Amino acid sequence: MGKTVAIVGAAGFAGIELVRAILGHPFFTLVAATSNELAGTPVAQEYPCFAGSTDLEFVTHDDPAVSSAEVVFLAVPHTAALAMAPAHVARGAAVIDLSADFRLRDAAVYEQWYKVPHTAPDLLGRAAFGLPELFRDGLAQARDSYEAGEGALVACAGCYPTATSLAAAPAVREGLVAEATPVVVDAISGITGAGKKCTARTHFCFADENLEAYGVGSHRHTPEIEQILGLPGRVVFTPHLAPTNRGLLSTVTMVLSPGAPRSTSDVLEIYRRSYRDCPFVTVLPEGQLPKTSSVVGTNCAHVGVVVNERAGVLVALGAIDNLGKGAADQAVQCANILCGLSEDTGLCRIAVPVL
Amino acid sequence: MGKTVAIVGAAGFAGIELVRAILGHPFFTLVAATSNELAGTPVAQEYPCFAGSTDLEFVTHDDPAVSSAEVVFLAVPHTAALAMAPAHVARGAAVIDLSADFRLRDAAVYEQWYKVPHTAPDLLGRAAFGLPELFRDGLAQARDSYEAGEGALVACAGCYPTATSLAAAPAVREGLVAEATPVVVDAISGITGAGKKCTARTHFCFADENLEAYGVGSHRHTPEIEQILGLPGRVVFTPHLAPTNRGLLSTVTMVLSPGAPRSTSDVLEIYRRSYRDCPFVTVLPEGQLPKTSSVVGTNCAHVGVVVNERAGVLVALGAIDNLGKGAADQAVQCANILCGLSEDTGLCRIAVPVL
Amino acid sequence: MGKTVAIVGAAGFAGIELVRAILGHPFFTLVAATSNELAGTPVAQEYPCFAGSTDLEFVTHDDPAVSSAEVVFLAVPHTAALAMAPAHVARGAAVIDLSADFRLRDAAVYEQWYKVPHTAPDLLGRAAFGLPELFRDGLAQARDSYEAGEGALVACAGCYPTATSLAAAPAVREGLVAEATPVVVDAISGITGAGKKCTARTHFCFADENLEAYGVGSHRHTPEIEQILGLPGRVVFTPHLAPTNRGLLSTVTMVLSPGAPRSTSDVLEIYRRSYRDCPFVTVLPEGQLPKTSSVVGTNCAHVGVVVNERAGVLVALGAIDNLGKGAADQAVQCANILCGLSEDTGLCRIAVPVL
Amino acid sequence: MGKTVAIVGAAGFAGIELVRAILGHPFFTLVAATSNELAGTPVAQEYPCFAGSTDLEFVTHDDPAVSSAEVVFLAVPHTAALAMAPAHVARGAAVIDLSADFRLRDAAVYEQWYKVPHTAPDLLGRAAFGLPELFRDGLAQARDSYEAGEGALVACAGCYPTATSLAAAPAVREGLVAEATPVVVDAISGITGAGKKCTARTHFCFADENLEAYGVGSHRHTPEIEQILGLPGRVVFTPHLAPTNRGLLSTVTMVLSPGAPRSTSDVLEIYRRSYRDCPFVTVLPEGQLPKTSSVVGTNCAHVGVVVNERAGVLVALGAIDNLGKGAADQAVQCANILCGLSEDTGLCRIAVPVL
Repeated sequence: MGKTVAIVGAAGFAGIELVRAILGHPFFTLVAATSNELAGTPVAQEYPCFAGSTDLEFVTHDDPAVSSAEVVFLAVPHTAALAMAPAHVARGAAVIDLSADFRLRDAAVYEQWYKVPHTAPDLLGRAAFGLPELFRDGLAQARDSYEAGEGALVACAGCYPTATSLAAAPAVREGLVAEATPVVVDAISGITGAGKKCTARTHFCFADENLEAYGVGSHRHTPEIEQILGLPGRVVFTPHLAPTNRGLLSTVTMVLSPGAPRSTSDVLEIYRRSYRDCPFVTVLPEGQLPKTSSVVGTNCAHVGVVVNERAGVLVALGAIDNLGKGAADQAVQCANILCGLSEDTGLCRIAVPVL
Repeated sequence: MGKTVAIVGAAGFAGIELVRAILGHPFFTLVAATSNELAGTPVAQEYPCFAGSTDLEFVTHDDPAVSSAEVVFLAVPHTAALAMAPAHVARGAAVIDLSADFRLRDAAVYEQWYKVPHTAPDLLGRAAFGLPELFRDGLAQARDSYEAGEGALVACAGCYPTATSLAAAPAVREGLVAEATPVVVDAISGITGAGKKCTARTHFCFADENLEAYGVGSHRHTPEIEQILGLPGRVVFTPHLAPTNRGLLSTVTMVLSPGAPRSTSDVLEIYRRSYRDCPFVTVLPEGQLPKTSSVVGTNCAHVGVVVNERAGVLVALGAIDNLGKGAADQAVQCANILCGLSEDTGLCRIAVPVL
Repeated sequence: MGKTVAIVGAAGFAGIELVRAILGHPFFTLVAATSNELAGTPVAQEYPCFAGSTDLEFVTHDDPAVSSAEVVFLAVPHTAALAMAPAHVARGAAVIDLSADFRLRDAAVYEQWYKVPHTAPDLLGRAAFGLPELFRDGLAQARDSYEAGEGALVACAGCYPTATSLAAAPAVREGLVAEATPVVVDAISGITGAGKKCTARTHFCFADENLEAYGVGSHRHTPEIEQILGLPGRVVFTPHLAPTNRGLLSTVTMVLSPGAPRSTSDVLEIYRRSYRDCPFVTVLPEGQLPKTSSVVGTNCAHVGVVVNERAGVLVALGAIDNLGKGAADQAVQCANILCGLSEDTGLCRIAVPVL
Repeated sequence: MGKTVAIVGAAGFAGIELVRAILGHPFFTLVAATSNELAGTPVAQEYPCFAGSTDLEFVTHDDPAVSSAEVVFLAVPHTAALAMAPAHVARGAAVIDLSADFRLRDAAVYEQWYKVPHTAPDLLGRAAFGLPELFRDGLAQARDSYEAGEGALVACAGCYPTATSLAAAPAVREGLVAEATPVVVDAISGITGAGKKCTARTHFCFADENLEAYGVGSHRHTPEIEQILGLPGRVVFTPHLAPTNRGLLSTVTMVLSPGAPRSTSDVLEIYRRSYRDCPFVTVLPEGQLPKTSSVVGTNCAHVGVVVNERAGVLVALGAIDNLGKGAADQAVQCANILCGLSEDTGLCRIAVPVL
């Protein structure tokens, strides 16, 4: 029968990806795509890839269709989701939040990194973490709650945390990482990660033919990665920008624990086992390393691993599409789970071979 | 039910797009993807976007599965299709040829531009031209022939001819273009148009941050455009390369005939009428011009038109994905027609909003 | 010895190029680089390529150093130069204007295309056109006027007109172009041509992997090209954007006159003769076509020519750096001439081999 | 006056940069640019940026002009320099070797990483390391030897080691790094770093819109970085490729020693002191991080530093042009020193502001 869907904040990069995904989804029906700024504008005028395919127009956030939608995606800046989510959950909707507002379980950590008060701490306990491969149980509980008519909230993982955690989690969870050592995360993102707003950083002429780091030591995805991996205070996260539109590659360097295997093939075996039932995560064979171009436009993550015996470290790499698995597609995957669908419903698994 | 499909020349850029399209197609079953050079290699090793999705390996061109396939795509260099097509047609298969071998109706013109003998001139009369929006009748005849068990051959249009002809055909066919005047076609293609072979032209460091023309006055798509539009000797075609992977934009400048309308809106009306029943061609509203990023990854063409009253000319622009509507997707569209399916079966109509 | 130089509008893309050029120039001394918006900001903070090389700060347009500078570059939007130029000329300065304000000899044409009144029409008669290879006499007169203490004004050619005219002028001037035929100019520019302002067009994520035309039939460089070439009402100009930072390629298609030579080599001979004494224009040998990457970062133009006997047309192509020969470097070349220096003083002639 | 210069291996990316640098150098005269493959071809034909500027043709490696040149640059693959360098040094020439053949002081380490015998171990003791900011004394000795007529050999640092060591050396040398901890080097290079040879990695269509790591744990620059910094067995080096032509950014994460300062400003003070007399190294102010676009086309390095108190680590970043400071320009800097010139003679210090 299908579910009605509203996308709040549909004009941004993650939001418009959601529009495309939901329009092509076999079970969801899009009833509202909101943008206060562009209300009344046809989607196809702002994003001409929709020309000829839909007459949909953006509506305001408070459009009635939003408050009656069975599934609500929030693709809004942080703090905006804090204001919107509670009412939708209370009325029994499935809320899939792509913002950071409900990712950190501890409101104090949120307030420390985001420098704003957390106005809905009660809801934190109900928020399932939206990274299905690592947090299946929470999503199953959310599904049960939603099916019971009590509403549900998913806090989707951020883009850097998704790629980083998929690369590092099997090693961390299986005890391969030495205690009390720093975990070094150097990640590179395409420019869509910097958002739709025109800035000195997103101007073509400054982004093109340039490589740079930003937010060194202060990026807000740091506590999120630490929470996912259970490594408080140990993640050294340095994000970089490179001139691609999409794609995110995270390179994680971890000191091996005394008991950890010293061969790449043994570690790969552990990784393969971890992701055995995960249709969207591919552990690459030994000698092959992830490329972002292999996953752009999909919900897939490619993971590669190399043991450096000489230095006693493990280098794990994860590649995703920051707007796909890192945002819109992962949100759809979570919505599928909440609605009792196969998690890959309506999601693409093969990237365009030559981007 | 469905049909079995073989892709000959599956490791090139058009071929591998076909692999992806057929793997995701609801009615076709891929039984062979050939590459003499890579026979035995897993597709996912050469193109890691397939990792985790298929165990398919390339086989040689003479693999038995090819000769029993009901639909055969030929994504091979010119002259190779000359050698392969006749036998498949003779045994009753539907042959969709992406090469140039059967595009030019006159073998002499082929021999003049391609500098090789045409070894299958008898088949030219049976070749339907694979640009459905402009040549529906021929494709319908080919379908009848195929359904009658007599085999069929489609000669798919080239990438430049597709974008150029979709932009120019309504004006030419409706008599808007002054007689005996040159039609100036300046087109820009992404680098995938230059093929998978590594050359000085396709090396990143020479292609990046560079704009150049090539094949000025001598490009082999010239006679093809002239044949499609019925403008012998009048097309001045200058192709250019720009540093994108995909995308092809053709800008066609035509002198208006004395009786042609002098307003953009009137010409647009004619264009809209021409493409009324074409799900893959969108005529953009006045004031909007085609962008290649709006169609990349799809079988769509965006067409825009501007009348320049001052100079008495019409400028018509067409944007396509050179590997989509300009190659693999258009081939699938033709195969759909031959097999009696809706022409959009299994084809994407909405590009990724932010490439 | 040497001359003092002020750059008004130094924070834009052309202005900052001038800063770099003047800092490295052996005879000019930079005394002011202005930006009302960034006054007080170190140049190296806004453009970190200057870090470690200069402590220069932007000052306001009305800084006293501007009014006493011997040479004043105006890298300001149109209408701003109208307001500034007269006083500097009146006090005897050499004014090198990079805006469009004094390019069109006829104030009425200016007002028609720029939709604003021309407030300094008296000065139009004194403005030398800043495209030295085609207008040497005017610049020589301006030099004499400047040396006589009467001030001088150069209206530097726009980027598209520079590339286009260098490609087309020898053919037009030598009578190779058929009368009353349209001259079709399709040009491609890098994104710096769209300016420093962040817009939907200059955002990396919309410019990257995209090809599009803009301003079809209405671009303001149209009357400028027509004036330079003496072809009123005959230029059909379609500019395009492609994802490079710099570089501009203009492809000009002209119908050959009855008496014109029909071989590329004969036309090349005419071109070589035309540019015999021009150190910055290279006519490429037959079979070679201009690439923008060959001239980026320099004041050079590469010109190539192909006769299409079949269609009776000449295709001429010109490649420049839109910020080099198309803006800052050509302005320096003009300043060199006004100051009696060798025209290549302080200017680069060899681009970085691999951009 | 002046010195004659030969460039052996002039057709590769580093070699052709040397050609451009030497042609514009005020004291060096280029007498031979060699390429066995392209001997007889005009330089301007292979690299059209030289069109109109030089009639120079490539000659073979054994051209007599090479054996009489006073300064010989070797821009050849490893092992080729082993074969060439000894004779030139023996005849009293200044040999500036850009290959890896004489970088590693211990022939056994060379043989272990490069898998070939070192055939000129006697010369290792005479090779000065070509990274002037960190090894001034060795270069001074080489200069003395050259001036004494005894010849000299400089082994120029590799691109990754240059950026990495300039970022890390002050911290390591001043004792800021905790003993026995791994030093994590994640670096990103433009595609010119992968060389002129066309491969699957350098093909535009595979490099564009892609991010990937390569040579994880096995890249040959690892022992070179360890030697420079004096950190045997402690460097974990992961190089990445991103779709720019030039530019190399190295991000070095080091655990702070117990006594190290815990504030970024204190560490910056140490860095500034270290590079006080280095015209080509700019330590950026607190809050500013290096961008490769700021140094492309120059011999400059930009260095930035951030202390992460939370994790007790120092993140140091270095940006260079891999073909400039990372290859050709650094080689010229070394040649300047050997010839008793100011080290910045003929070298560019300000990058193009908008690349």
